[in-house]
Amino acid sequence: MTLLRPSGRQPDQMRAVTIERNVARNAEGSCLVCFGATKVLVTASVETSLPSWRRGQGLGWVTAEYGMLPRATGTRTRREATAGKQSGRTQEIQRLIGRSLRAVVDMAALGENQVIVDCDVLEADGGTRTASITGAYVALADAVKWLTERELTKGEVLRDTVAAVSCGVYRGTPVLDLDYLEDVEAHTDANFVLTGSGRFVEIQGTAEQVPFTRAELESLMALAEKGIGDLTQIQLAALSS
Amino acid sequence: MTLLRPSGRQPDQMRAVTIERNVARNAEGSCLVCFGATKVLVTASVETSLPSWRRGQGLGWVTAEYGMLPRATGTRTRREATAGKQSGRTQEIQRLIGRSLRAVVDMAALGENQVIVDCDVLEADGGTRTASITGAYVALADAVKWLTERELTKGEVLRDTVAAVSCGVYRGTPVLDLDYLEDVEAHTDANFVLTGSGRFVEIQGTAEQVPFTRAELESLMALAEKGIGDLTQIQLAALSS
Amino acid sequence: MTLLRPSGRQPDQMRAVTIERNVARNAEGSCLVCFGATKVLVTASVETSLPSWRRGQGLGWVTAEYGMLPRATGTRTRREATAGKQSGRTQEIQRLIGRSLRAVVDMAALGENQVIVDCDVLEADGGTRTASITGAYVALADAVKWLTERELTKGEVLRDTVAAVSCGVYRGTPVLDLDYLEDVEAHTDANFVLTGSGRFVEIQGTAEQVPFTRAELESLMALAEKGIGDLTQIQLAALSS
Amino acid sequence: MTLLRPSGRQPDQMRAVTIERNVARNAEGSCLVCFGATKVLVTASVETSLPSWRRGQGLGWVTAEYGMLPRATGTRTRREATAGKQSGRTQEIQRLIGRSLRAVVDMAALGENQVIVDCDVLEADGGTRTASITGAYVALADAVKWLTERELTKGEVLRDTVAAVSCGVYRGTPVLDLDYLEDVEAHTDANFVLTGSGRFVEIQGTAEQVPFTRAELESLMALAEKGIGDLTQIQLAALSS
Amino acid sequence: MTLLRPSGRQPDQMRAVTIERNVARNAEGSCLVCFGATKVLVTASVETSLPSWRRGQGLGWVTAEYGMLPRATGTRTRREATAGKQSGRTQEIQRLIGRSLRAVVDMAALGENQVIVDCDVLEADGGTRTASITGAYVALADAVKWLTERELTKGEVLRDTVAAVSCGVYRGTPVLDLDYLEDVEAHTDANFVLTGSGRFVEIQGTAEQVPFTRAELESLMALAEKGIGDLTQIQLAALSS
Amino acid sequence: MTLLRPSGRQPDQMRAVTIERNVARNAEGSCLVCFGATKVLVTASVETSLPSWRRGQGLGWVTAEYGMLPRATGTRTRREATAGKQSGRTQEIQRLIGRSLRAVVDMAALGENQVIVDCDVLEADGGTRTASITGAYVALADAVKWLTERELTKGEVLRDTVAAVSCGVYRGTPVLDLDYLEDVEAHTDANFVLTGSGRFVEIQGTAEQVPFTRAELESLMALAEKGIGDLTQIQLAALSS
Repeated sequence: MTLLRPSGRQPDQMRAVTIERNVARNAEGSCLVCFGATKVLVTASVETSLPSWRRGQGLGWVTAEYGMLPRATGTRTRREATAGKQSGRTQEIQRLIGRSLRAVVDMAALGENQVIVDCDVLEADGGTRTASITGAYVALADAVKWLTERELTKGEVLRDTVAAVSCGVYRGTPVLDLDYLEDVEAHTDANFVLTGSGRFVEIQGTAEQVPFTRAELESLMALAEKGIGDLTQIQLAALSS
Repeated sequence: MTLLRPSGRQPDQMRAVTIERNVARNAEGSCLVCFGATKVLVTASVETSLPSWRRGQGLGWVTAEYGMLPRATGTRTRREATAGKQSGRTQEIQRLIGRSLRAVVDMAALGENQVIVDCDVLEADGGTRTASITGAYVALADAVKWLTERELTKGEVLRDTVAAVSCGVYRGTPVLDLDYLEDVEAHTDANFVLTGSGRFVEIQGTAEQVPFTRAELESLMALAEKGIGDLTQIQLAALSS
Repeated sequence: MTLLRPSGRQPDQMRAVTIERNVARNAEGSCLVCFGATKVLVTASVETSLPSWRRGQGLGWVTAEYGMLPRATGTRTRREATAGKQSGRTQEIQRLIGRSLRAVVDMAALGENQVIVDCDVLEADGGTRTASITGAYVALADAVKWLTERELTKGEVLRDTVAAVSCGVYRGTPVLDLDYLEDVEAHTDANFVLTGSGRFVEIQGTAEQVPFTRAELESLMALAEKGIGDLTQIQLAALSS
Repeated sequence: MTLLRPSGRQPDQMRAVTIERNVARNAEGSCLVCFGATKVLVTASVETSLPSWRRGQGLGWVTAEYGMLPRATGTRTRREATAGKQSGRTQEIQRLIGRSLRAVVDMAALGENQVIVDCDVLEADGGTRTASITGAYVALADAVKWLTERELTKGEVLRDTVAAVSCGVYRGTPVLDLDYLEDVEAHTDANFVLTGSGRFVEIQGTAEQVPFTRAELESLMALAEKGIGDLTQIQLAALSS
Repeated sequence: MTLLRPSGRQPDQMRAVTIERNVARNAEGSCLVCFGATKVLVTASVETSLPSWRRGQGLGWVTAEYGMLPRATGTRTRREATAGKQSGRTQEIQRLIGRSLRAVVDMAALGENQVIVDCDVLEADGGTRTASITGAYVALADAVKWLTERELTKGEVLRDTVAAVSCGVYRGTPVLDLDYLEDVEAHTDANFVLTGSGRFVEIQGTAEQVPFTRAELESLMALAEKGIGDLTQIQLAALSS
Repeated sequence: MTLLRPSGRQPDQMRAVTIERNVARNAEGSCLVCFGATKVLVTASVETSLPSWRRGQGLGWVTAEYGMLPRATGTRTRREATAGKQSGRTQEIQRLIGRSLRAVVDMAALGENQVIVDCDVLEADGGTRTASITGAYVALADAVKWLTERELTKGEVLRDTVAAVSCGVYRGTPVLDLDYLEDVEAHTDANFVLTGSGRFVEIQGTAEQVPFTRAELESLMALAEKGIGDLTQIQLAALSS
C-alpha cells in the first residue's frame, strides 16, 4: 500500500511539535516553536504604555505582530521593510494571532498593561500561523507570570489555554496539520483556533479550488479537536518544565 | 413578550435584500446591493490585460477591491487614500471577496481575460462584506455575459452562484444576518460564503469575547444555509429580470 | 443645420441638473448632485474637533476631500488607496472645493466647529469639480442647519450661496457646462466659482492647446454668470423642499 | 501722503526683475530668476527618453518640477523628501508650470525629446510660481537651442514666449506683482500666464476672504497685461545677451 | 585591582565567537554567528537574475540586507515593516555589509549570478554589524561553493576572506570588540573591516563625544588587526568543518 | 612630464575653496561653500522647539539635512520628494554632517535651543559631503552668534572648529580633495572630519575595488591633516570678515 501523505504521516497525525521556552534573553516571555520544519521565534514584550484609545479604562491589551525572514521560504521573499509595507497576508495573520490571544485573556485582571507578541518565522514549511498562535500562548503565559510576580495583575489573567492547527482535504482525504507540500495541493484548507477546554475561538475554512460540503467540514473539525488536544498537552508540558 | 432583535426581526430572518442591476453606465457589470440599510455599489470591469504572473497560461483572473466612503459610517472614517494605505481590515475583506468569486469561476473558460470587481460601501450598517460578495456575483455574471456576447469566452464560465451572509450569537440566541447594533454586541460572529448548490466556499468564525461551542457553530451553519438559500433566489431573480 | 454640441444642447444651455438631499443617513448634510451623467455623492460631516492649528481662536473650519470610484470613468482608474496617495489632480480639486466653501462661511459665526465635506464621484462625464462644489454648498447648508438647531453657532454662518460651472471654447464656439466629449476636444477650459450674488470666488482658465484672447475669456465669463444663475435657483429650490 | 504698498512701489509697478542665464554648468539650459527678493534657480534638462505613454508618436514632451529649499521661507519649512511626499501646493504649482510651457511648444517640432524643467526656490518673498514660469521659459529656450544646434528638432519649436505675474487687491487697490507682505493681506489673488503676443494661457483668481467683482477682475487683467509686457522684454533681453 | 571591562575581559580580548553553518534548510549558504550575546542569523540566497543595471556585462553582484527582530533589544523596537521604511541606521549598515563582501569577490568569476545576503539580528548586545559581516562571509562562501559545484562560476570567486570588529576607547583605554554596555559609554567607536591577509576594506571611526587623536586611532587599528586575525581563524575553521 | 591629476593639481593640493556668508536673508546663519565646481548652499535655522526626546534636560540639539538639486549632477537625478523618500546615501550623509557638528558643540552652553543645518547641493563635482560639513560649521557659528547676541546661550557653545576633506588613492598616488573624475576612478576613498585643533571626529575609509594597506591609510591621514589645516584657515577668515 502506498502512503497517502508525502511525509508518511497518518491522516490524523501531527508533525513533531516542540516548544522551547526562554530563548530570547531580553523578552519577558519567549519560545521557539517548531511544527516539523516550520520554526517560529516568539517573544512577548511587556510595555509600560497602552495604545491611546485603551487608556484609563482599567483594562489591558494584547496585540501581535508577524514577520517572516526573507529566506524562511524556498525562494527568497522580499523583505517587507524594503517593500515599505506589510502585505495583506501578513496583516491578516497578525490580526488573527492577536484576536486568538485576547479570547483567553481577562483584560481587567491584566490591568493597564500591554503585551506585544512578536512571531517571526525563521523557517516556513506550512502552518506558520498555527505554530505562531500555539507558541504565542506560551510566551504570553510567561509574560503574564512576569507581571504577576511583580504584582502588576489583579487575579487570574489567563482564563484558558489556546492553540491552533490547520486541516485540509488532501487528495480526497481529510488530514491534520498540513505541511507545505500538502498545503499547495489541498483543495480545502481550514485553520482552527481552540481553547484547551475545547471551545472554538476562530475557524477559517477556505475552498482553494472546489467548494466543500458540510460533511467535509465536520470531519476537519473532528481532526482539529484531536490536534488541539495534543498541542494543549505540549503547551502545558512546556510551561511546567 | 419583548422582541429579541433591535430590528424586530425573527432570529432566522434576513433584512430586506435588494439588488438593482446596471447602475453604472460605464461598467461591463454593476449593481447596487442593499442588505437593509447597508448599501454597496458594485462594478465589474473587464480588463484587456492580465497580471504579469498570470499571462500565457490560457487562464483568466478575477480579483476584487473594497472601499468605504468616509461617511458610510456613524462617525466619519478617515479616507484611505489620504492615510496612504489600505487598512488590514480592507485588505482582508477584498481578499475574501476575490477568493469567493474565484471559487465559482472556470478560469480556462474565462480565457485570458481579467475581471476586477470593485465594492464600494455607500452606507454601512453591518454585513458590508457579505453584501459585497452577494452583489459581486451578480456584477461578475453581467461582465461574463458581456464577454460571452463578444465570443471572448470558451464555454460556461460560472460553475455555480455564490453568496454570503453573517450569523452570530446575539444575547444568547443564534441569529441570521447581523446588523450593526447586533454586530457590536454579539459575542460570536461568523461569515459564511456558500454556493447556490449549498457547498461551502469560506467560513470565518470569530469569538469576539467568549469562545463558542461546536453546537453553537452548527446552529450558525444551519442559519447560514437558510440565508444563502434566500440570497440565491434574489440573485437569480435579479439576473433574470 | 447640424448641431454644434454632441448632446444637442445650445451653447448657453446647462445639462439637466438635479440635487437630491438627505441621501446619506449618517451625515449631518448630504446630497446626490447630477450634472447630466456626472453623479457626485456629497456628505457634510460635523466634527467635534478642529485641526490643531485652528484651535482656541473662536473660529470654525470647513474643508473638503474628493475621490472618484474606480469605475466612474470609461476605463477603470486605479484606486488611490492602493496607489498609496492622492494624485496631484485630486489634491488640486479638493483644495478648490474647500476654498470655494470657505469663501461664503463666516468662521466666527460657525464657532469652534469643523465641517468636512466629502465629494465622491459615482459617475464621471465631465464637470466633476463643478458639480462637487455646487452640491457641497447644499450639504454644507444642511450641516450648518444641524449645528444651528443645536445652538452651536453664533448668528448667520452662510453669507451667500456658492456654485460652480465650467465653460470652454468648443469647435470655435464658447459653450456652457462642458461634458466629457466636449472637454476632451475643447482648446480652452475654464472653471468659474461664483456666489449667488454674482461675485467671483475662483476663476481657473487653461488653454489646453491654443492660448485664448481676452475677448474669449469675456464671453466665457458671461456664460458662467448665466449658468451660475441657473445653479443658484436649483440649490435654493433643493434647500427649500 | 502715505505710501500704499509696503515696498513703496506704484500699484502698477513690478519688482526689480533679473534673469541670469547659464548658472548651472551641467544643464542644457538654466537661469537664476529674481522677482525682488524671490530667487528661483531653474534648470532645463534634455532627456533622451520620453515617458512611456508618449513614445512612438513623433511628439516631444515638456514637464516641470518645483521645490523649495527648507529655509527659503521666514521660518524653516519641512523638507518634502523627509515628509515622504510633495504637498498638494507643490504639485499644483509644478503642474501649472508644465502646462504653461507646453502652451507655447510645438511638440512635433520638438521631436521625440523630453525637456524636464526644475524650478527650485532659493528665497521666497511671494510670487515663486510666477517667477518660476518666467524663468522656466528662458531655460527652456536654451535647452531647445541646444537641441536645435544638434539638429534634433524639426523646425521652430517655440511658437511664442510665455511669462507669468500675480495681481491682487491690496487694501482696496488693485496692484501688480504681490510680494509676501501684500500676499498675506490681499483679499484677492490672481495669477496670470500670458504669451508674449498677449494671449492668455492660464488665469487663476482666488478670493481669499471676500469674493470679487467682475470689474475688479478686469482691472487685475489690465495690470497683468502690463506686467507681462515688461517681463517679455526682460526675457528677450536675457536671451539675446 | 578592579576590572576595567564590565565583562571582565582583557582590553584586547574578543568575546566568545561562534559560527554555526547550515542553519537554514532553504538557503544556499547560512550560519548563526554569535559575538557573545549578539546573535545574527545569516542566509545567502543565490538569485537567478541580476539587477537590471548589471545585466549583460558578464559580471555578478553581491548585495546585503539587514534587519533586527523587534525584541532583539532591551526594550522592544518598532518593526520596520510597520514603520513603512528602513531607518537610516539600517540602510547604512546593510550598505556597509554589501561593500565589505564585494571587496573580496571577483565579479567576473562569479559570472552573471547574484547572491543576496540577509543578516537578521536575533539578539543584540553591541557589534551587530561586525558580527553580520563576519558571518556573511561564511554564508557567502557556502553559496559560492553551491554555485561552483553546479559549474556556474568561472575560476576562483573569493579573492580573500573578510571579517569585521569594533574597537573603542572605554574609560580611557582602547578595547577590542565593544559589547552594549561599553558601546553606550565609549567616547570613540570605530568599526574595522579587514581581509584575512590584513588589508583594510573599511574603517569607520566616530567620536561620540570627544574627538580622538591620531595616536588613539593607531592603537585602535592595532587592536583591530589582532581581532581580525582571531576572527579569520574562526571563519576558516567553520568553513573546513 | 605628464600631469597626474585631471585638474593639473598637485597631489596635496586642495581645489579653490571659497565660503561666502549671509547668502540667505531669512536664515540665522548661512553660506555658499565651493570646493572647486562643487557648490553647496548651507543654512542654519534656529528652532524654538527641541525634538520631544530631548526636552527638559537643559541641553540643546544640532541636526542636519542634506539634499541635492536634480540637475546638480551631469545627468538629471530623480527628485527625492517625488521618489517619496530619502535615499540611503542621503541619510548616511546627513547623519554624518549632524554628528560632525555635534562633536564641537557644548550642548549645555547651547541651552534648550535647536539648530537645524540644511546643506543643499547646487552643483556637484565630488566632495559634496566634505564641502557641506566645512560650510555647515560656518553657518552654525553664525546661528550660535545670533543666539548669543540674544542672550539665549550659556557660555561658549563652540568648543572647536570642524572641517572635512576627502582623500584617495588615484592611479597609485595618494591625493587630496578628490573631484568627480578622480572619485570615479580612485580605488580607495576616505573622508576625514577633523577639528581645527587637529583631532579626529570621523574617519570613513572605503576600498572601492582593492583593499588598502595601513601604510596607504597613514599617507591619506597625513594629506587630510594638511587639507584640514587649509580649510580651517578659510573658515576662520570667512567668519572674521
